[in-house]
Amino acid sequence: MFESAELGHRVQKSVYDQEVPALREALLNAQFDLGTSKKCPVIILIAGLDGAGKSGTANTLNEWMDPRFIQTHGTDAPSDEELERPHMWRFWRQLPPKGRICIFDGSWYAWPIFERAGGRIKNPKFDQALEEVRRFEQMLIDEGAMILKFWMHLSKDAQRKRLKKLEGDPLTRWRVTERDWKHFELYDTFQEVSERALRHTSTAAAPWIQVEAVDARYQKLIVGKTLLEQLRLRLDRPPSRPEIIQAPAALPDLDGKNILRSLDLTQKLDKADYDRELEKYQGRLNLLTRHKAFRDHNVIMVFEGVDAAGKGGAVRRITQSVDARICHITPIAAPTEEERAQPYLWRFWRNLPRKGRLAIFDRSWYGRVLVERVEGYCAEADWMSAYGEINDFEEQIHDSGGIILKFWLSISREEQLRRFEERQNSSFKRFKITEDDWRNREKWDSYEPAVCAMLDRTSTEIAPWTLVESEDKYFGRIKILRTLCGRIEENL
Amino acid sequence: MFESAELGHRVQKSVYDQEVPALREALLNAQFDLGTSKKCPVIILIAGLDGAGKSGTANTLNEWMDPRFIQTHGTDAPSDEELERPHMWRFWRQLPPKGRICIFDGSWYAWPIFERAGGRIKNPKFDQALEEVRRFEQMLIDEGAMILKFWMHLSKDAQRKRLKKLEGDPLTRWRVTERDWKHFELYDTFQEVSERALRHTSTAAAPWIQVEAVDARYQKLIVGKTLLEQLRLRLDRPPSRPEIIQAPAALPDLDGKNILRSLDLTQKLDKADYDRELEKYQGRLNLLTRHKAFRDHNVIMVFEGVDAAGKGGAVRRITQSVDARICHITPIAAPTEEERAQPYLWRFWRNLPRKGRLAIFDRSWYGRVLVERVEGYCAEADWMSAYGEINDFEEQIHDSGGIILKFWLSISREEQLRRFEERQNSSFKRFKITEDDWRNREKWDSYEPAVCAMLDRTSTEIAPWTLVESEDKYFGRIKILRTLCGRIEENL
Repeated sequence: MFESAELGHRVQKSVYDQEVPALREALLNAQFDLGTSKKCPVIILIAGLDGAGKSGTANTLNEWMDPRFIQTHGTDAPSDEELERPHMWRFWRQLPPKGRICIFDGSWYAWPIFERAGGRIKNPKFDQALEEVRRFEQMLIDEGAMILKFWMHLSKDAQRKRLKKLEGDPLTRWRVTERDWKHFELYDTFQEVSERALRHTSTAAAPWIQVEAVDARYQKLIVGKTLLEQLRLRLDRPPSRPEIIQAPAALPDLDGKNILRSLDLTQKLDKADYDRELEKYQGRLNLLTRHKAFRDHNVIMVFEGVDAAGKGGAVRRITQSVDARICHITPIAAPTEEERAQPYLWRFWRNLPRKGRLAIFDRSWYGRVLVERVEGYCAEADWMSAYGEINDFEEQIHDSGGIILKFWLSISREEQLRRFEERQNSSFKRFKITEDDWRNREKWDSYEPAVCAMLDRTSTEIAPWTLVESEDKYFGRIKILRTLCGRIEENL
Repeated sequence: MFESAELGHRVQKSVYDQEVPALREALLNAQFDLGTSKKCPVIILIAGLDGAGKSGTANTLNEWMDPRFIQTHGTDAPSDEELERPHMWRFWRQLPPKGRICIFDGSWYAWPIFERAGGRIKNPKFDQALEEVRRFEQMLIDEGAMILKFWMHLSKDAQRKRLKKLEGDPLTRWRVTERDWKHFELYDTFQEVSERALRHTSTAAAPWIQVEAVDARYQKLIVGKTLLEQLRLRLDRPPSRPEIIQAPAALPDLDGKNILRSLDLTQKLDKADYDRELEKYQGRLNLLTRHKAFRDHNVIMVFEGVDAAGKGGAVRRITQSVDARICHITPIAAPTEEERAQPYLWRFWRNLPRKGRLAIFDRSWYGRVLVERVEGYCAEADWMSAYGEINDFEEQIHDSGGIILKFWLSISREEQLRRFEERQNSSFKRFKITEDDWRNREKWDSYEPAVCAMLDRTSTEIAPWTLVESEDKYFGRIKILRTLCGRIEENL
């Protein structure tokens, strides 16, 4: 795999000195166009063995371009805030907005390769991690990001020579540590593991670019020229994503049956039962969140449902029973300017809670496959790929100890009308009804298939949807509290 | 001081039950108006002794209003990311944007009171901390925030009774720990310390409101009603800040002398000397940032100067010599939507680096007293108070181990014209000159007094301004590098 990167590529100093000024100018121009057009974020990964000139290359790119609009990240040990979230959280918070460049020295490949080379994980787990990386990068690409992945390669022989040479010079001797030689002994293992990583994650849209790292001039010039070429390509001729994709969004409706219509909305709870049950589950929930084992988990709740389905009331019955200091509600409205410059899921990632806390999303990332689909705010290709992206997102939350609950609150069309009219006539609730609500109601029939598809595709074992018959508010609220308590209990 | 809060205030259950529904409705309406008008952020502090119903009150406010737009913060131990920044960083990141409510259970008072009561700091240091808090709150108020500070009070006798009562009931016995009785023994000390804190920080715009905490109904109703009254006052009749203030912005110019004009702009360095000095200081800077002691510090650099004064070139000479992974540049442009919903300094606070890193601000918080003053983007009262706010900000950075360097790059009017023309004729630099630059040049005479006032008021021992004669680029760059190395050396 690395054959082309062991040919002894070199660039003469005279050639280098002649080429660099024009390259710099062109790169600066491209960077300027990128910044003004805000066409896409640019993500550059620089990976490879120790001593293969990774940080040198990153520094050179900073030198050649305007460093004010480049952010360079190393792979430090994660902070405690990062350790309390899914592994990928630290990378999400480092993603560049549109128009900016980000260089990752290390990146999301560091951990899986290091763990595999050290024998702490086996191939199945390794492949799984690589597959997650592949899907993450695909998501970024689908969101319009440009990703360039450089693998800096040194043959075993070149690596030995490099270390010997450094050791031989009294001025550079200090740079070679015992750890370097220990890593050198692992060369073959690292090589084997890396090759597998590259094989599994070299995709059409984000291939690995192998760069021979013996000659620094060659290495820098190759990286610079590749970056320039790709930037110009993207700036001058942006790729168009297919708007319509050739796959069935849903099965045709033959018999009028669907999961929503099959709900029994006549289920009720009388006031006395409700009061008793409410007290019971609120008390239980409070105790659960004060349980010692709860500190190792967090709870992520999603509330979806048509307008006036009772989301707010249900949320309130939860917040009433837990300490406000450990509970954070994120009401989802239009994204802010900073959020719009990032991939769709970014604004949810940034609101993931630390351990020992509850996060409630009043509407959520499912907006992509509900309102955005129905209103045509995004292309079919976008919402069709969102199902998979969402499942990946939730799996990562689950893998880091998160308990995910997703509630779909269901009411009938008639009940919605009744509640709308009630709201209009109540000063107490006047602000709960808007023109938008009436407009959305008109689209009831378009929402139904979208909801059914969402339930089919995203109700997973680790993050199941709970359908809540909310025609009777008491019944719905108790079902939610009971489900919540049950899921936490299972996990403690 | 606490006399009014030891009168045995009580509210009958019947009164409470009768009052709460109307209060809730009014609070919800006020909160809705706040959210739609985005008039100001609302910051509610709930402080006081353990067991004085602080979190109960916070929970009740969440229950009465729409919890989706309230964020409640406890005072957990700071995370490592927080520990590597000034003490107040954690509160800055929790500040609510305009239109939202934030409840602090604990807040910025917790640490000073706790330290003083524990005898770890003495009164001078305590008073200093309180003074910092006072200025922080004044800044928030000047920025338009509404602050309500509730002090929950229990007399010693009431506190003893409360603990005894809890212990007496087998159902609540677990809630009383040895720590509670230990705290009780410190009651008088805490009381004395708290009184001093309240005395020093009760200001006209943010007075402490003492609430007797014996009767929960009284406590909640008082807090709810006060909040409602203040919200309505603010919403219906926003306070107007004086636009023009009665203080001299600068001394009259009698003799044409000022600090900028006194600079010797003829200072030069020839190319050979420059190359030698550049190599020397870049090497030294690189070594300094790899020094072990550097990990306990961070470097915050500010670059200001007229257009084309050479800020970019100077920044580049610094970034060239340090690892890109530990250096972050924040170019200051127009604030984003999220930044506009926060106090002026918020966007700089959010970019403060962790330890062992360098942060470069290409233009900075000084925009307030330069461009915003000259262009009239803010009122005189705003930029006049900015000097003090900025000094406070920098002092906090310094106190947490930050090394602050501020460079003012000075060139003559003629040199600026020469550089503008050069830029216009160079394809390489074409994007460095805009219509704005020519427009700003017209305002040269208005900028001069603004710069002089800035230097006079914000060049402090802990964060001095370095005036850089940049007529000759070589001279200017070396002066900057030499100053930077010197300041880091002093601090390691």
